[in-house]
Amino acid sequence: MNWNHEVVTDIIKTCLREDIGSGDVTTESVVPEDHWSEAYITAKEEGVIAGLPLVKKIFEFVDCHLRFEYLKQDGDKVTYGDHLAKITGSTASILKGERLALNFLQRMSGIATKTADLKELIKDYSVRIVDTRKTTPGLRIFEKYAVKVGGGDNHRMGLYDAVMIKDNHIESVGSITTAIEKARKAIPHTMKIEVEVEDLVGVKEALEAGADIIMLDNMSPELMKKAVELIAGRAITEASGNIDETNIQSKAASGIDVISMGTLTHTIRSMDISLNINPKKIEELNSRH
Amino acid sequence: MNWNHEVVTDIIKTCLREDIGSGDVTTESVVPEDHWSEAYITAKEEGVIAGLPLVKKIFEFVDCHLRFEYLKQDGDKVTYGDHLAKITGSTASILKGERLALNFLQRMSGIATKTADLKELIKDYSVRIVDTRKTTPGLRIFEKYAVKVGGGDNHRMGLYDAVMIKDNHIESVGSITTAIEKARKAIPHTMKIEVEVEDLVGVKEALEAGADIIMLDNMSPELMKKAVELIAGRAITEASGNIDETNIQSKAASGIDVISMGTLTHTIRSMDISLNINPKKIEELNSRH
Amino acid sequence: MNWNHEVVTDIIKTCLREDIGSGDVTTESVVPEDHWSEAYITAKEEGVIAGLPLVKKIFEFVDCHLRFEYLKQDGDKVTYGDHLAKITGSTASILKGERLALNFLQRMSGIATKTADLKELIKDYSVRIVDTRKTTPGLRIFEKYAVKVGGGDNHRMGLYDAVMIKDNHIESVGSITTAIEKARKAIPHTMKIEVEVEDLVGVKEALEAGADIIMLDNMSPELMKKAVELIAGRAITEASGNIDETNIQSKAASGIDVISMGTLTHTIRSMDISLNINPKKIEELNSRH
Amino acid sequence: MNWNHEVVTDIIKTCLREDIGSGDVTTESVVPEDHWSEAYITAKEEGVIAGLPLVKKIFEFVDCHLRFEYLKQDGDKVTYGDHLAKITGSTASILKGERLALNFLQRMSGIATKTADLKELIKDYSVRIVDTRKTTPGLRIFEKYAVKVGGGDNHRMGLYDAVMIKDNHIESVGSITTAIEKARKAIPHTMKIEVEVEDLVGVKEALEAGADIIMLDNMSPELMKKAVELIAGRAITEASGNIDETNIQSKAASGIDVISMGTLTHTIRSMDISLNINPKKIEELNSRH
Amino acid sequence: MNWNHEVVTDIIKTCLREDIGSGDVTTESVVPEDHWSEAYITAKEEGVIAGLPLVKKIFEFVDCHLRFEYLKQDGDKVTYGDHLAKITGSTASILKGERLALNFLQRMSGIATKTADLKELIKDYSVRIVDTRKTTPGLRIFEKYAVKVGGGDNHRMGLYDAVMIKDNHIESVGSITTAIEKARKAIPHTMKIEVEVEDLVGVKEALEAGADIIMLDNMSPELMKKAVELIAGRAITEASGNIDETNIQSKAASGIDVISMGTLTHTIRSMDISLNINPKKIEELNSRH
Amino acid sequence: MNWNHEVVTDIIKTCLREDIGSGDVTTESVVPEDHWSEAYITAKEEGVIAGLPLVKKIFEFVDCHLRFEYLKQDGDKVTYGDHLAKITGSTASILKGERLALNFLQRMSGIATKTADLKELIKDYSVRIVDTRKTTPGLRIFEKYAVKVGGGDNHRMGLYDAVMIKDNHIESVGSITTAIEKARKAIPHTMKIEVEVEDLVGVKEALEAGADIIMLDNMSPELMKKAVELIAGRAITEASGNIDETNIQSKAASGIDVISMGTLTHTIRSMDISLNINPKKIEELNSRH
Repeated sequence: MNWNHEVVTDIIKTCLREDIGSGDVTTESVVPEDHWSEAYITAKEEGVIAGLPLVKKIFEFVDCHLRFEYLKQDGDKVTYGDHLAKITGSTASILKGERLALNFLQRMSGIATKTADLKELIKDYSVRIVDTRKTTPGLRIFEKYAVKVGGGDNHRMGLYDAVMIKDNHIESVGSITTAIEKARKAIPHTMKIEVEVEDLVGVKEALEAGADIIMLDNMSPELMKKAVELIAGRAITEASGNIDETNIQSKAASGIDVISMGTLTHTIRSMDISLNINPKKIEELNSRH
Repeated sequence: MNWNHEVVTDIIKTCLREDIGSGDVTTESVVPEDHWSEAYITAKEEGVIAGLPLVKKIFEFVDCHLRFEYLKQDGDKVTYGDHLAKITGSTASILKGERLALNFLQRMSGIATKTADLKELIKDYSVRIVDTRKTTPGLRIFEKYAVKVGGGDNHRMGLYDAVMIKDNHIESVGSITTAIEKARKAIPHTMKIEVEVEDLVGVKEALEAGADIIMLDNMSPELMKKAVELIAGRAITEASGNIDETNIQSKAASGIDVISMGTLTHTIRSMDISLNINPKKIEELNSRH
Repeated sequence: MNWNHEVVTDIIKTCLREDIGSGDVTTESVVPEDHWSEAYITAKEEGVIAGLPLVKKIFEFVDCHLRFEYLKQDGDKVTYGDHLAKITGSTASILKGERLALNFLQRMSGIATKTADLKELIKDYSVRIVDTRKTTPGLRIFEKYAVKVGGGDNHRMGLYDAVMIKDNHIESVGSITTAIEKARKAIPHTMKIEVEVEDLVGVKEALEAGADIIMLDNMSPELMKKAVELIAGRAITEASGNIDETNIQSKAASGIDVISMGTLTHTIRSMDISLNINPKKIEELNSRH
Repeated sequence: MNWNHEVVTDIIKTCLREDIGSGDVTTESVVPEDHWSEAYITAKEEGVIAGLPLVKKIFEFVDCHLRFEYLKQDGDKVTYGDHLAKITGSTASILKGERLALNFLQRMSGIATKTADLKELIKDYSVRIVDTRKTTPGLRIFEKYAVKVGGGDNHRMGLYDAVMIKDNHIESVGSITTAIEKARKAIPHTMKIEVEVEDLVGVKEALEAGADIIMLDNMSPELMKKAVELIAGRAITEASGNIDETNIQSKAASGIDVISMGTLTHTIRSMDISLNINPKKIEELNSRH
Repeated sequence: MNWNHEVVTDIIKTCLREDIGSGDVTTESVVPEDHWSEAYITAKEEGVIAGLPLVKKIFEFVDCHLRFEYLKQDGDKVTYGDHLAKITGSTASILKGERLALNFLQRMSGIATKTADLKELIKDYSVRIVDTRKTTPGLRIFEKYAVKVGGGDNHRMGLYDAVMIKDNHIESVGSITTAIEKARKAIPHTMKIEVEVEDLVGVKEALEAGADIIMLDNMSPELMKKAVELIAGRAITEASGNIDETNIQSKAASGIDVISMGTLTHTIRSMDISLNINPKKIEELNSRH
Repeated sequence: MNWNHEVVTDIIKTCLREDIGSGDVTTESVVPEDHWSEAYITAKEEGVIAGLPLVKKIFEFVDCHLRFEYLKQDGDKVTYGDHLAKITGSTASILKGERLALNFLQRMSGIATKTADLKELIKDYSVRIVDTRKTTPGLRIFEKYAVKVGGGDNHRMGLYDAVMIKDNHIESVGSITTAIEKARKAIPHTMKIEVEVEDLVGVKEALEAGADIIMLDNMSPELMKKAVELIAGRAITEASGNIDETNIQSKAASGIDVISMGTLTHTIRSMDISLNINPKKIEELNSRH
């Protein structure tokens, strides 16, 4: 989990402000300041866990005296009742961080689980499943991380790290060839060019113009297979367009290199995970740690 | 849509940086700076639209010269092929804002649609459906707005605008009564106190201690009905705990005032919405506007 | 003092930049980097202290190696010459934080002292003294905290955590009844509605429309008494409008529940508090700590 | 009013967030979006006005369609009932900015009025009255501006724009002479050095070491007069230390150049100013503007 | 000039605060608020201009009423006395933005000029000259832009948009082959891999492991030629390591594809450019525009 | 090195984001997380070092577990091969901070070296060499610091801490005398006034109007000498205008107090400094520290 620490801290800070605002009026008025607890984060259903290091950061951000112990690691397949982590310290601090921590962990684990399930479906093919830019605004680094935890791979991070020429770009300059030439001239030699095509004519033009990656958009399995054969390894091939569990195998069978799927991040079913608190006397805690 | 303009602008700014980073290398190198288009945002399936004013803000933020026209309003029920909005102006600017605009609009419309569907199920009861704090981190104001657009209502915005005493708070001070008394003493007279209870004993204690709202957590319809009768209008009643389309009607039938549902925002199916671009000669545009 | 740590840190950061800017040219050029001191914060007049935890945060922010010891606690009544806290460490660091720390402590203690004095005047009545939104821009959380330290209570924190319907709102929709109905429909069930009224007709209408709190604005003691009797516990009663030490007792005698006073925070007399430095040799410090 | 526009905007933004937070629940639910008003800002007592350009900026920040007209200018002496400004536009927008605008205007006008009153007391002497660094944290530029509007002058803006050697600095290096020498060597040739002294010995040493300004701290009028004669124009003389309306004239009579007074900004009595709204039909407004 | 508008605005804001701080004390006290001028930006030596759009943004940021006219365009080769732009409006505003505008324009034009000079030296070869990450911290987008204006191309923007495996990376995993394999597995399929090698053994290993770009570090022209022949178009070839005007031709002659040069941005000679102001009566300006 | 810690941290944060963006894709994919190294920062040519404390802050910011040891101090004159500092810890962390650290250190040492060289040329005169506002936008505090490390002094920090009346200011009000009078009236008594003059008439007028500093702009050595004699110590004298190593001695010989030189910071030759990594087994490191 190699996120830029500062970027993550800024996101945590913004999200905690959203939830806590001018103060947690319940906890501040009810829970004694010296009340201590042990809290367990527990899976309430089966799935692949993603986000524990972020949960750790959230609790440490709320209160640097909270002690966080991993009981599982990101990528672990867990089942109902499995304890994922234990947090020890001020009850008030745990309660303030609880909701944000779970909101992240549930979404990220939901994504990792979905990715793992789809990956399982095509385990007999050497094809990559990758995400898209259809991520939740502001949370892309976490969602792309969750896809990797689930066994998938990432597409480009944003508009800045690879060229992706789509139909609208092509129309604006007249042809695939012109678009690729203009891009090649303007971009660093360190950058790849991907082109979206819809038929074999497009495939040929992209290939001749030197595309590094050719995205076959919404092609039937048969057409896709022909396209892959036509390309014959001279460019990376990527299948795209409304791919889900019902059709992923037929795409994979076409010999494609990469399958990109918006559904990995645009349709999220949060995994059911809870946090339970066991109040502990401070002395008891002290004697054990 | 009465959001604090500055808060929304900051979110847009952060999210655009996430996507564009050091630059949209494709658009900048391929699309001519003076290329103009008309773009239509179009529904690809049935649903309730939420987020158009935010989409407008995003495109205006990217390029203040883009012209945005509403073709539908938030809350409208739309069907496949309906045009929702039209954006006219620089093709490059439209392409830079496209993904962020759709990412928001699809998620928010997904939430509004789900809320409307659940609301429909209980239309014969005078009960509110409300959201929870299980929202996507950083995007709570948009998701709570979408719930209202779909016909639902909002629960508290965060930890700061109402007291919600849960089991962990109660345990830390010993009893519901003590918790309510401590809260009442500490909070402004302008604030309400809600208490989560699990049985009739808890209901009675909360009622006697003067709770404004009593949340009946995971009760069976029968028990819930008894609780509602016991409370008899002396406090607002709220049903909570794993409520979904399979059990919402039985909850509503118990006479409860409010049903709160995490599923409204923690499990999101983005509505299918696309943006299509029609290149236009500038002269043509000029002659028409 | 349960402030959101990050919010407080941001305020300290902004305020220190205001004072230090591109550098403390005096201290940096004159005071040797290895010069150490003990500094005492001392009351120069009688009053109630508020703000010491903030002072601690300021000095720790300037230099995390400074050691801060509480000699008094917030809420303590002190007199001329009482030491409030001791700071030990780099002389240069102490001098850089001194002014900001005192500027906060003097204002907050001034507010706490004023609140305590007013509270004393009405000690025979069970009535709350509360603040308003007439606080110093940017420093509301500190000023509202100081009011509580002085024995007062808080009104709503801002425009976001309770409904307060004033004359301008009423005029814009035609009647108290319509205003309350519109608000009740739009707001979460977790939120209260307060209405400002000026006569008994208004009281009756507000009561019938279901106001949770009725603010009696600028009423004579006699009228206020009648209003309180009319309301008869069916809503919380709040007195408001140019209340100060000259008329607070007559308001309290009317049987009102809450008295709100802008003067608590809009007219501030800073308490006289100073910081004195005793240079110490580092060895001496080392031998003692 | 030559403030850095961006700095002022940031302060307004922060302060509006403090007040509005997640939304003005009253105005948003009660006031119709198309309701228009004319609002007048009116003095409720005599005083010198300061802050109208800031008020203009606040309303324009809340809603760039609001129209602000000056009816008075900063520095004008006003009396009960004088209209200071008129704001026309959306009622909801006016209500959202009202409190922040008044909170600033009342405080700043209070400072300007106080300064003018003190200035009047010493109008027969050619002496400057200046502020100190005892300003409200975060609002120094506004408070120092208000002092100038009231006829006073400013001391240094912060720790960064002039050297001020105080007793603690002197002690840390052993003597006034050493302190001045160290400072002179380290600072730009564009910067002045001020030294605080308590007796004539200090005055002489500071003078010989080349101080540009000598601050006479807490001296009796007699001693101060001697000091001024001793200095004889070779340095600027500044009186300081608990100066208020009771003793300012005797200080001025000593022939001093500058009198610095913390009380100008550390003890603030907000001027009574209100905002009143006259609802207007939009047609009526349109016909008039 | 396709910079993210918001990123540029943030940099301008930060840099103006650095220079103006609490206020331009000279201009604010001396220049009348209604004094108007025409200012010309003028080259004082020969060179290639880069940065005029940024200069425009700076002046518009300082005062949105300033009128900026381009008299030259970025990329133009200019000579002593050429007017580059004209700014019309408030004298005070022009003076506040002058220094920052020139500081940027001089540096960026210095870089563009240097790039153009080096490009001229190798005009007979079809080789790209590219920059490195040795840019001025915080100003990379402007410096890389200036390189392009001068006729050069860009290397990767940062650590995030391409893999560059250097000796330290290789040592940490044991071999070029392992490093490339690990990278290929972890990165998106949209990203290229560049490897730095020092001899022909390295070239061969990198080639076999599938490097997209091979950087020949500090090789003699002879060795470089052999490397280029060995690679034979199977990877892009890049020369690097202390290349300047004395040896660039021999590198280019080796048949290399790309030459990367730190000197383009780490050693900057600002171009001499000045801003001159002609005071104008406002009437005169009005009559002309 | 007395920088405001928070300001420096913000600059480091911004600059690291510029370089690392969404992640260091090379290091994260290739270097094992538990790989440890010792790194040496080494001079590759002769010069005066400036910036080591900033380098320390950068590495600590990237990874607070990195251990930084000074082997030289800022201001030390070093030669080829001298080790300046040693960093021990995670190889990945060192690689992420390397480029930013060197980019700063090379620029700042280049400035210090240049200043020292110029200072050497005039070592026989008691004259100050000072910088100007022609610094790299955003990095002024570091560049002005480097000038001091090299033996120079600083001019004013920005537009806010001293008055500098230039020709444009004078023209806008009609005369030097009026400009000085207006400034003196408006500014704090703690601030100096500098005036730029071009001939002896200007010198006389500035002197009579009471200028604290007179800048002699672009004068010949003879004229400058006459001006200095005319001023005769009644104001500080400053030479300015295209001064470099070719003419600095003649300026110094005129008896001037201060020489200001834009070239110190507007034309930068980065000093050649590198960072080399020695991989170490963790056990080995543990046994040694």
